[in-house]
Amino acid sequence: MSTLSPQPYKGTRDYYPEDKRVQNYIFETWKQTVQRFGYEEYGAPILEPLEVYTAKSGQELANEQTYSFTDRGGRVVAIRPEMTPTISRMVAARRQEMAYPARLFSIANFMRYERPQRGREREFWQLNVDIFGVDSILAEAEIIALSSAVMKALGAKDDMYVIKINNRQLINFMMAQYLGLDAVQAQLMMKLFDRKAKISLEDFRDQAIEIFGEAMASEGLTKLSALMSAQSMADLPREIRESSAVKGVQELFTQLERAGVTNAMFDITLMRGLDYYTGTVFEVYDTDPENNRSLFGGGRYDGLVGLFGAEPLSAVGVAPGLTMTELFLRSHKLLPELISTTQVYIVVLGDALKGAMKLADELRSEGVNTELDMTGRKLDKQLKTGIKKQIPFMIFVGDEEIKNELYQLKDISSAEEQTLSVERIIATVKDHRRSS
Amino acid sequence: MSTLSPQPYKGTRDYYPEDKRVQNYIFETWKQTVQRFGYEEYGAPILEPLEVYTAKSGQELANEQTYSFTDRGGRVVAIRPEMTPTISRMVAARRQEMAYPARLFSIANFMRYERPQRGREREFWQLNVDIFGVDSILAEAEIIALSSAVMKALGAKDDMYVIKINNRQLINFMMAQYLGLDAVQAQLMMKLFDRKAKISLEDFRDQAIEIFGEAMASEGLTKLSALMSAQSMADLPREIRESSAVKGVQELFTQLERAGVTNAMFDITLMRGLDYYTGTVFEVYDTDPENNRSLFGGGRYDGLVGLFGAEPLSAVGVAPGLTMTELFLRSHKLLPELISTTQVYIVVLGDALKGAMKLADELRSEGVNTELDMTGRKLDKQLKTGIKKQIPFMIFVGDEEIKNELYQLKDISSAEEQTLSVERIIATVKDHRRSS
Repeated sequence: MSTLSPQPYKGTRDYYPEDKRVQNYIFETWKQTVQRFGYEEYGAPILEPLEVYTAKSGQELANEQTYSFTDRGGRVVAIRPEMTPTISRMVAARRQEMAYPARLFSIANFMRYERPQRGREREFWQLNVDIFGVDSILAEAEIIALSSAVMKALGAKDDMYVIKINNRQLINFMMAQYLGLDAVQAQLMMKLFDRKAKISLEDFRDQAIEIFGEAMASEGLTKLSALMSAQSMADLPREIRESSAVKGVQELFTQLERAGVTNAMFDITLMRGLDYYTGTVFEVYDTDPENNRSLFGGGRYDGLVGLFGAEPLSAVGVAPGLTMTELFLRSHKLLPELISTTQVYIVVLGDALKGAMKLADELRSEGVNTELDMTGRKLDKQLKTGIKKQIPFMIFVGDEEIKNELYQLKDISSAEEQTLSVERIIATVKDHRRSS
Repeated sequence: MSTLSPQPYKGTRDYYPEDKRVQNYIFETWKQTVQRFGYEEYGAPILEPLEVYTAKSGQELANEQTYSFTDRGGRVVAIRPEMTPTISRMVAARRQEMAYPARLFSIANFMRYERPQRGREREFWQLNVDIFGVDSILAEAEIIALSSAVMKALGAKDDMYVIKINNRQLINFMMAQYLGLDAVQAQLMMKLFDRKAKISLEDFRDQAIEIFGEAMASEGLTKLSALMSAQSMADLPREIRESSAVKGVQELFTQLERAGVTNAMFDITLMRGLDYYTGTVFEVYDTDPENNRSLFGGGRYDGLVGLFGAEPLSAVGVAPGLTMTELFLRSHKLLPELISTTQVYIVVLGDALKGAMKLADELRSEGVNTELDMTGRKLDKQLKTGIKKQIPFMIFVGDEEIKNELYQLKDISSAEEQTLSVERIIATVKDHRRSS
């Protein structure tokens, strides 16, 4: 038989313990933060019927990016590319029994068939946070405040990120009433807005002209430039400023200010790719000029639960991703030093294995994470293994130590050595964990 | 558009918060227990090339049970049906750099296309624990002791489960030397042994005769019955008892006794389905006669790392599953009462929302998981929501309370109410969490 490749599948990542520590640090910070806001964890299947995504996630996502296939029973399924349709389905299934407002979160993996690049992998992990059953803008305010709290919990300062906010109803008004576009043109213009940061100003102009059409181009471009130059809601063209959709946006900013979120801004060009948004949309941006990228986003999607045959229910959600979060933390130097979850490595001298096992048992029963070297190798080889594993303490156990019930404890970071009883070892190691 | 079904994909489960609490309880107990033994967590992709499983996992698993398909780039992939090939691949990829013995674990989901039934789902979760780089039987002893520790940590008593142990080399000796079977016959006989508990004695006999063939049947059945009636290693036919493979098994029992594992027993009929095992195999059984089922198992698989082009490396692993563990805990009444991770539900009276938000912020910043009812509904509706969510405490906030900075705290389980300052509320809630 030929040799198998040791590489992971394209666009996916192996998380070795040192990578997993970073993942766990981010996951645990996420989890703790959203639990502070009273959100409860749920879990969901990795597979869904493909039609769940063709319904409302958008053509590109459902038709080009899903890992979809026909199962051995003839069902057309997809590995989930996002969580919103799934959690909407789950809420729909228990529409009558659940307590509202429902506050729910999950941390899960997803797959999309895209070209892998920096910050984008085919398999990716996301925190998914959703509130169901609050019609008012207070839901958006809480989800955005929570998004900001997630950033803060990871060590971000206010000036490291900005929250850009727009509204789908306002976008619709702008496209139809202000720019005078029909549905097809509006769709194209939204896609163009979405690509804005990735293309040149000239390309943007050319493509806008194409959407407006010869006859409308001149007037259209003038109106567009009035839009794009607006730095705040007050700068917007009067027709838009006086539209009813603006009121909700203004109320949202009032609520955010009350919640202490000061780095939010209105951005009329913010679109978000997914079809199911019905009101507020927002994105958190890295302000570092070298990155200047969208970290994650969310919005209101009041129509999804109803798609699954249940009474309609309002919903607002957000989904920070692991990959962009890790890049953000690294570029802003916010990632703490993360060591092994193992606290003690026992090095065994001579024939002391039996006694060393007993010591390991004692330490473990007192809650100390203890690895025992049972290889019988030379001292220096055992020592090297413990150091390579980044375990903070080492204990040396020989016959003499067992007889005297006193052991040498070495603190690897300070290289300090002490001769201690089991009780003192336990206290020292536990103390270190608390203070680190 | 027609309505979408709210049901999850066949053989998968939605984990609502009350289900997820059970899952998290088991996951966290697993994690804590294996970390006590110095195992470190890793993560791995949900997809692997299909050939990773056709190589050594066995024909049934790779060809009939995988969720395999061709991706948009023409690669034949499978949703992982187990972790052993993946972790072997990961170790092979860093064969030179890693520190040995390597002790690794993960908690992950898997999929197999099987008929769903009680205790078996198409998507299932497993703890995967593996030690790489220990040739001696001490590796098996540690993995089995750890398996027992996992059961104990979940509340199991020694008499609730038994660990059955066999050895692939001993099985091979038994099949070839003792029963005189060729490779094809041996394969069939092993499959028959594997099904033993699920078929009648008569069926077992008939199928055994078919495997032996007319000429050998009589002698074969006599030898088989001598085997099957053995209650311990001492009862085994002399040829087997004196084979070299028995020595390793005996040494393992000695080590297990030393480690305090008293509920292990030898079982010559234990096979385990997977092709890659090379030495010890074991399974943990529920002793409840109503269940009498295998909970999980593991064994030695020294050949897998080498398949990925790396220098061969010895390995022993075990993989307890979530579904069987949950069934075990429920049938033995070992599952503790699990409440919401949210600690406080704030009920808002009248126009006090702004002040209630401030209170929520204060509680959260002190580490209290706080949900705020922002619906403006009547008192009794808010109250019902908090109770339905199984949140242990409720705070009632009106204008009067905000002015006086004193709030009513209600303990839901005792129905006791106290009027307290924020500081006292925080202390009371934290105290409750610690004691529960």
